[in-house]
Amino acid sequence: MSTKQKKKADKVKARKPRGFADRDVAEIRAAEAMMATIREVYELYGFDPVETPLFEFTDALGKFLPDTDRPNAGVFSLQDDDEQWMSLRYDLTAPLARYVAENYQDLPKPYRSYRAGWVFRNEKPGPGRFRQFMQFDADTVGTASVAADAEICMMAADTLRKLGLKQGGEEREFVIYVNNRKLLDGVMESAGLSGDEHSGTRLAVLRAIDKLDKFPIPEVRKLLGEGRMDESGDFTKGAGLDADQTDTIMGFVEFRDLESSDTGANTKTLKALRASEFMENPKFSEGVAELETISGLSGAAGYDSSVIAIAPYIVRGLEYYTGPVYEASLTFEVENDKGKVVQFGSVAGGGRYDGLVGRFRGEQVPATGFSIGVSRLLTALRKRKLLENQDELGPVVVLVMDKDQMGSYQAMTRELRDAGIRAEMFLGNPKNFGKQLSYADKRNAPVAIIEGSDERASGQVQLKDLFLGKKLSADITDNEEWRAQNPGQKTINRSELVPAVKAIVQIYQAD
Amino acid sequence: MSTKQKKKADKVKARKPRGFADRDVAEIRAAEAMMATIREVYELYGFDPVETPLFEFTDALGKFLPDTDRPNAGVFSLQDDDEQWMSLRYDLTAPLARYVAENYQDLPKPYRSYRAGWVFRNEKPGPGRFRQFMQFDADTVGTASVAADAEICMMAADTLRKLGLKQGGEEREFVIYVNNRKLLDGVMESAGLSGDEHSGTRLAVLRAIDKLDKFPIPEVRKLLGEGRMDESGDFTKGAGLDADQTDTIMGFVEFRDLESSDTGANTKTLKALRASEFMENPKFSEGVAELETISGLSGAAGYDSSVIAIAPYIVRGLEYYTGPVYEASLTFEVENDKGKVVQFGSVAGGGRYDGLVGRFRGEQVPATGFSIGVSRLLTALRKRKLLENQDELGPVVVLVMDKDQMGSYQAMTRELRDAGIRAEMFLGNPKNFGKQLSYADKRNAPVAIIEGSDERASGQVQLKDLFLGKKLSADITDNEEWRAQNPGQKTINRSELVPAVKAIVQIYQAD
Repeated sequence: MSTKQKKKADKVKARKPRGFADRDVAEIRAAEAMMATIREVYELYGFDPVETPLFEFTDALGKFLPDTDRPNAGVFSLQDDDEQWMSLRYDLTAPLARYVAENYQDLPKPYRSYRAGWVFRNEKPGPGRFRQFMQFDADTVGTASVAADAEICMMAADTLRKLGLKQGGEEREFVIYVNNRKLLDGVMESAGLSGDEHSGTRLAVLRAIDKLDKFPIPEVRKLLGEGRMDESGDFTKGAGLDADQTDTIMGFVEFRDLESSDTGANTKTLKALRASEFMENPKFSEGVAELETISGLSGAAGYDSSVIAIAPYIVRGLEYYTGPVYEASLTFEVENDKGKVVQFGSVAGGGRYDGLVGRFRGEQVPATGFSIGVSRLLTALRKRKLLENQDELGPVVVLVMDKDQMGSYQAMTRELRDAGIRAEMFLGNPKNFGKQLSYADKRNAPVAIIEGSDERASGQVQLKDLFLGKKLSADITDNEEWRAQNPGQKTINRSELVPAVKAIVQIYQAD
Repeated sequence: MSTKQKKKADKVKARKPRGFADRDVAEIRAAEAMMATIREVYELYGFDPVETPLFEFTDALGKFLPDTDRPNAGVFSLQDDDEQWMSLRYDLTAPLARYVAENYQDLPKPYRSYRAGWVFRNEKPGPGRFRQFMQFDADTVGTASVAADAEICMMAADTLRKLGLKQGGEEREFVIYVNNRKLLDGVMESAGLSGDEHSGTRLAVLRAIDKLDKFPIPEVRKLLGEGRMDESGDFTKGAGLDADQTDTIMGFVEFRDLESSDTGANTKTLKALRASEFMENPKFSEGVAELETISGLSGAAGYDSSVIAIAPYIVRGLEYYTGPVYEASLTFEVENDKGKVVQFGSVAGGGRYDGLVGRFRGEQVPATGFSIGVSRLLTALRKRKLLENQDELGPVVVLVMDKDQMGSYQAMTRELRDAGIRAEMFLGNPKNFGKQLSYADKRNAPVAIIEGSDERASGQVQLKDLFLGKKLSADITDNEEWRAQNPGQKTINRSELVPAVKAIVQIYQAD
C-alpha cells in the first residue's frame, strides 16, 4: 500500500448516527426567534424556567413512553460504574416530576415552571422523526384546580397567536382541543374495564380510539376487538374487547362529530355530554363538570369555542393522564408527503398527571402540563412564512489587498465592530481577489471594503455595496460595460469609514 | 404489610445520578444573560451559530480527551442496534470537525462559527466537577493565517470586558495568555522526541509542564523523569526522559518568568525568545514568528501586553493542538476551597488544531478555536457580582377571595397580561388567605390584588404593595397596630386596575 492509499484507508467517515441532525444557522435563528416568543408568553403568565440534566436514573423515569409495550424499549440506557441503570430522558415531564419531588419543600406551590430541552427516543428514525429532538414544556404542579388546566390552554392559544397564527373565527389557523380523560375512563368503567388488572387493555383502547382520525370506524372496531391486519399483511393485536364492550366504547365515539368552529359549539357539546347515558358513571359526570369549568373560565377570559374547543374524542396517547387533556392543532392545510392536502394537525399537547410526582412521595401531587414539539411547530411556522425575517444580514467584509497591511485592515474591522457593525477581515488566502468577493457573497455581506496601495496613499477606501452591485449588474449584460461602471462601488475618505458603512448597512437592515 | 407500608416500599427515590445537576431559575437567568452577551460579541465578529447533535459515532470523536490514557475512558458510549458504537460528545470541537468535513463544499471558507451546548465526561464527579456541563465555543476553520488566532484572542478579551471585567493596566481582572505549541514541539525535537513513536512521551511532557503552576520545579523534573510519589503515596508515572532531555525541556521553562502586566512585556518576551538557543530549531523559530504576528496584530487593534500576553509557558492539555494556544485567565483573587487566597485562573482556552478536520478528509484543513467553560465563568462573574440584576420581579398575584368568582379574577389576570404585566391568578387552595399571601411572598410578587365581596359590590379592588408593606411593617412591632394600618394597602376603582398596578410595578423594575 502506498502512503497515500494508506492515508485514505485510515480516514474516518464524516457522518452522524441515524436519526440525529445538525442545525444550521437558518434553523437555529428561526428556532431561537420562535422560542423567545414562547418564553415571553410563559413569563407573562408567571412561569419561571427550571432545567434538569439529560440523564436520570432509569427507575425515576418510569415506563411512560407512548406506543411502546416493551419495558425500557425506546430509551437510551446505560449502566453506571456502580451498576445502576441510567437513561437519557425521553420527555421533560418525568424529570420534572423527579425535580419537584426532590425539592418539594423549597418550591412555591402551586409551582409554575417552563423549560426547553433535548429529549431522546431510541426508535427507528424516519422522515421528520428524529432520535434527538427538542420539546418546550410548561407545567403547573401542586394544584388540583382545573383553573390551572384552563390557564395552560389559554397560554397555548396566546403563544400561537403571538407567533403570528390567526386566532378564532372562520379564518382561524389553530384550535386548542380540550377533553377529559375521566370521560373515557368512565366509559371504560361502564364497559367493565376498571381496576389495575385491566390497565393494559385500557391503554390498548386509548390507542385504538386515537386512530379515529386515521382509520374508518370498522377498522377502529377491529383494534378494539381481536386486532387488525393492514394492507401489507402486518397484524396489530387488538384490545381484546367482546362485542358488547366494543359497542359501549363506540357509543362514546358519536361525540366526535360535535366539534365545530361555532362560537356556541362548547355549549352544545357540553349539553350533549350532560344528556348522555354515561352521566350515570360518577367519573364521567365529574369529567363533564370539569370541562364545563374550563369552558366557563376560558370564555370569561375571552376565548370562545373557536379558540378553545371542548372535543370529547381527543385522546393523547400517554397512559399517565388523569384529568383534562389538551391538544394544540393547526387547522390550515398543507400538502403531506404523498401530495395529499391535509390539515397540519397537532403541534403540542398535554394534560393532567396527578400520579407522576406521587410516585416519589407516596402521596398524590396534582399537576398539569403542556409540551410543544419544537421542530414540528417550526416547520408549521415556516410553511406559513412567519419566521421569514430571520435571515440576518451577513457581516461587512474588509478585504485583504496587501498582506503587509493586515494591521491596517484589522484596525478598520475594529472600528466597525466598536460602532456595533458586524464586521470581519478576510482570513483566507488573499491572493485571489475574486475569491474574496465570492466569500463576501456567500456570507450575504452587505458591504466589502477595499483599501489597495493607491487608496492608502490618498487616505481613501472603496466601499462596494454588494446588494446594489448585484442588482445593477443584472441590468448590465456586457462584461466590459460592467467593469467600466463598477456598479455599487464608491470611494470615500478613510476617516468617513464608519458613518459611510453604517449608512449602507441601515438600508438593508430596514428591509 | 399494610397498604400504607406497601405504598412506601413501592416509592421511587427522587434523586439524580452522581455528577448531574438541576438548574434553578436564578442560575438559568444568570447563564442566559451571560450567554446573550457572549453571543452578541461573537456575532459582531461575524461568527454564525451552528449546532451538532449530542451523539456521534465513537470513531468520529477520536481519542482526544485530556488527562485520559485509556482508550474510550471518560466517555459515555453505547452500542446502536446495528452494533456500531456511538458516544455522547465530550467537547464541541470534535463534532465541529465532523460537521465541517461533512459539509465542506457548502460552507463559506474561512468558516467562522459558534455554539453553546452540553458535553459529557464519564468521570468521577467532585465539587464543581460535573459529568454534564456546558461549553461555549467559537472556531474559525479553513485558514492557516494566525490572524485568525489573533482575532479569537481579541474576541475573548472583548467578551470578558463586555461581561463587566476590567481590561488592561494595573487593575486588570483578566488576561489572554498566548503561546505556540510549535515552541514546545521544537524544544522536544531538540530533546530527540520527534516522530510518531514518541507521541505518548510528548503528551506526558506536556502534562508535566502543565503542572508548573501547581508544583515546584524539582517535582516537575520528577514528572519528566521516572515519576513522582505524592504525599498520600500515590505514584504518577513520569515521561521517562533521561537527565539530558530533562535539562533541555527545563531550559525552556526559564521563559515562564517573563510574563508581566507591563504594556511592553510582549516585546521583551519575544526578544528573549529570539535570543534563545532553541531558535536553531525551525519549528521553534516558526512558532516565535507566529507569536510576533499575533502580538503585532493585536497591538495594532489596541490590545497591549496587559490584555493579550505572550506567555511561552502556557500549555493547554490537549494533544491535538498544532500552533498557537491561548487561555483566558481571571487575575482577581478569590478564596479557594481550603480558604487560601488564589487567583481565579483559567475560564476558557483553545488553540489551533490543523489535523482534526483532516482526519475525515485525508488532507489538512487548518482550524483554530476557543472554548468557554460556562459554569466556571458564571461562578467567576457571580463572585464579582456582575450578574446581580438578574433577580427578576415575580408576577403580580390576583388572590382568590371567593371561589365562585374565578371568572372575574381570571379576567383581571388577563387584563394585566394584555398590558404586558407578568401576572397570575392564585391556583392553590384558596381557603387560607395567609397561605395565598405567603405564596405571593415566595414568588417575589410586587403586588397582590384583592377583590372580596365588599369591594366587588362597590366596583373596587384593593392593591397590596408587598415590598412597601414589608418595609413598613418592619417599623411596626405591634400586631394590632399593623392590622389597623394595613401598610402598603390601598383601594382603587376596578377600572383603574391596569394603570394602578403598572405604576407600582414600575417603581420596583426601576430599582
